[in-house]
Amino acid sequence: MLERVEIAFETWGSLNADRSNAILICHALTGDQFVASANPVTGRPAWWPQLVGPGRVIDTDRFFVICSNVLGGCMGTTGPASSGPDGTPWGLDFPVITIADMVRAQAALIDALGIGTLFAVVGGSMGGMQVLEWVARYPDRVICALPIATAARHSAQNIAFHEVGRQAVMADPDWCGGAYLKAGTRPAKGLAVARMAAHITYLSDSALQRKFGRTLQDREALTFGFDADFQIESYLRHQGSTFVDRFDANSYLYITRAMDYFDLAAAHGGTLVGAFAGFKGRACVASFSSDWHYPPTESRIITRAMIAAGIEVSGFEITTDKGHDAFLLDEPDFARALEGFLGASARQRGLA
Amino acid sequence: MLERVEIAFETWGSLNADRSNAILICHALTGDQFVASANPVTGRPAWWPQLVGPGRVIDTDRFFVICSNVLGGCMGTTGPASSGPDGTPWGLDFPVITIADMVRAQAALIDALGIGTLFAVVGGSMGGMQVLEWVARYPDRVICALPIATAARHSAQNIAFHEVGRQAVMADPDWCGGAYLKAGTRPAKGLAVARMAAHITYLSDSALQRKFGRTLQDREALTFGFDADFQIESYLRHQGSTFVDRFDANSYLYITRAMDYFDLAAAHGGTLVGAFAGFKGRACVASFSSDWHYPPTESRIITRAMIAAGIEVSGFEITTDKGHDAFLLDEPDFARALEGFLGASARQRGLA
Repeated sequence: MLERVEIAFETWGSLNADRSNAILICHALTGDQFVASANPVTGRPAWWPQLVGPGRVIDTDRFFVICSNVLGGCMGTTGPASSGPDGTPWGLDFPVITIADMVRAQAALIDALGIGTLFAVVGGSMGGMQVLEWVARYPDRVICALPIATAARHSAQNIAFHEVGRQAVMADPDWCGGAYLKAGTRPAKGLAVARMAAHITYLSDSALQRKFGRTLQDREALTFGFDADFQIESYLRHQGSTFVDRFDANSYLYITRAMDYFDLAAAHGGTLVGAFAGFKGRACVASFSSDWHYPPTESRIITRAMIAAGIEVSGFEITTDKGHDAFLLDEPDFARALEGFLGASARQRGLA
Repeated sequence: MLERVEIAFETWGSLNADRSNAILICHALTGDQFVASANPVTGRPAWWPQLVGPGRVIDTDRFFVICSNVLGGCMGTTGPASSGPDGTPWGLDFPVITIADMVRAQAALIDALGIGTLFAVVGGSMGGMQVLEWVARYPDRVICALPIATAARHSAQNIAFHEVGRQAVMADPDWCGGAYLKAGTRPAKGLAVARMAAHITYLSDSALQRKFGRTLQDREALTFGFDADFQIESYLRHQGSTFVDRFDANSYLYITRAMDYFDLAAAHGGTLVGAFAGFKGRACVASFSSDWHYPPTESRIITRAMIAAGIEVSGFEITTDKGHDAFLLDEPDFARALEGFLGASARQRGLA
C-alpha cells in the first residue's frame, strides 16, 4: 500500500470555462508524459508530435491536453526507484501495481485539476489498456474513449515476451535482487537484452526486411565473428543501450507485470460487455494490419463487446507494414480518422 | 581452419548391396544425431520417432538412415567446447563456421561410409538449410531433397531474434568472454534467457493461447509478485533451465551465426535458380501455415526457384496452428505426403 503518490504530468492548451475540453493521453510501456514537447531530462523529442499540438488532430489550441507519467514509472511519478518509507529506493519492496492503479492515480490527478469529466481519453498500446480501464472504472467521467493498437487482456505470447524481458533483467547480477540503486550498480546488460527482445515485437517482419534486410553494417563482407555484421544487429544493440540510459530496470519489471495482469473481462464478471456496460460515451477503436503484438483481432474483440454493450463505437484498421509502432508514426489515414471522430464528437458536445 | 574434425553420428538399418538406399537426416539448431533412438547422454527420446523407424515414413527396414551431429555442435562432433590445439577448449578461438561447412563435414562422413549418392537428404529448420546446401554443393550426390519448414536465407527478423539470444549469452558474466569452460563456470542464466526468447518463435500465437492462455500455475489467484504466476511463464522458465543442461552456450553462438550467415542465393551469383541449376534429382518442399519463424512464403520462394531451375519439385503447406515446431510433431498429413513422395521416388529408382 502506497501512502502517498507523486504524479508527474504535463499539460498543453487551456481549460475552458466549463472545464469540458480536457483530453487525457495515456502513454505506453516505455513512454512518458512528454507527448507534445521534448523531454527535458532525456532530451528525446515529443513522442506524438504528429497528433498533438497547435492545429493538430488533438489540437492544443482547442483542447486542454494532460499527460502524466504512469504509477510505477521512472519519469517523476512514484515508482520502484522512488524513495520508500525508510528514505532509500523502494526496489522490490514497491507494491506490484495494476493498470487499474495507474488509472486511479490519473483520476486523482484529474480531481486535483478540478476536472469532473474528460472530453476524451486517448492512448495506444498500454495507453489503450488505460483507456479501456477508464471506460470500465469511471464510465461517467469520459465522453470519448480512443483505445489504439491495444488489447483487453494479454495473450500467452504477450506474457511470454514480457517474461523473457524480466528474466533477462533478473539474470543480470548487477540487478542485485532489485536493490541495484542501493548497491550503486545498474543491470544495464540485462535491461538492454530485454529491450532488444521487446523491440522486435514492435515491428513487423516485412518492415524489418524492408528497412534492414541482410544489409551489412559499415562493412563490405561478413567478418566471420560475433560483431554486429548486420545492420539489424547494430540497430537492435543501439535500441538496447540507449534504452538503458533512460529507463529504470525495476520500473520495467513492474510495468510489464501490470500489463500481463491486465484482464478487463476477468475483473468484471468474466465478460467485456460487463466491463463496458456503464459507459454512455462514444468510442473509436483503432488497429494496424501488421501489428502482431496487439493484432487487429484484439481490437475487433473490443469493438464487438462495445457494440454488444450498446456503445456508439467505430472500429477501423489501418493497412500498414509498420507493425505495432505504427501508432507512434506518421500514418495519415489514422490521423484523419481520429480527427474526424474527435471533430464530430466535439461538435456534438457544442465544443467550438 | 580446423585441421582435424570428429563427427559423431548414428545409423539405423542396413546399407544395401549397391549402396543406393542411404538417407541422410539433418538436424535443427538444438537437435542432435539421435533422430530415431534416445540420446544416451541426455536421456531425451528420439526427436523424430513418428517419421523415422521400422515401418515408419522413413523406414529403417528399407533405408540406411544416417544422422550426424553438426559441425560446431556439442554432442560429439567437433565444436567450440572441443579441445583446441593447446589441449584446452576452443571457446571463441573456434573458427566461425557456416552451413556449407556443416554439409562438407557430412559429405566427408558419407565418403568415409563408402556412399557415393544419397537416396535422400531430409531436414527441417536448420536441417532444411543443410538440405538446400547439399542440393547446391553436391547436386550429383542427392536423388531426393526434402527441405522442411526452412528458408534459403535468414530474414532480418530471424537475425534479430538470434542476436537477442547471443547478447543474452554474452551478457552473462559467467560466459567469461567465451572461456567459461577454462574458468569452470557456465553462462546458465544467459543461455536460458536465449532459449526462452527462441522458444517463443517456435510456437504460434494461437497454439500458445490454446495450450496456456492466461491459466495460472499451481495457484488460485495472482500473487502480485514476480514469480511464475502464469503457466506460460513456468513453461518458458522450464524450457530455459532444461536447455542449459544439454547444450553448450558457445555452440549456440556458433550455430546461430551459421544460420544468420546462410544465404544460398548470395553464394551462387545472387539467384536461387543459380544455386539449384545443377540438381537433377527430385524435391519436396514442406511448410506449415502457422510457422512465423520460417513462414510458408519462404518455402514458396524455394519451390519457385526449383521450378525455374527445371527441377521436378512438389511443394505443400500443412494447415496447422502448431507453428514452426509442427515439423517435429505428429502431423498425419505431413507424414503421408513425405511417405508418398519417398515411396514414389523409391519405386522410380527400383528400390524395393
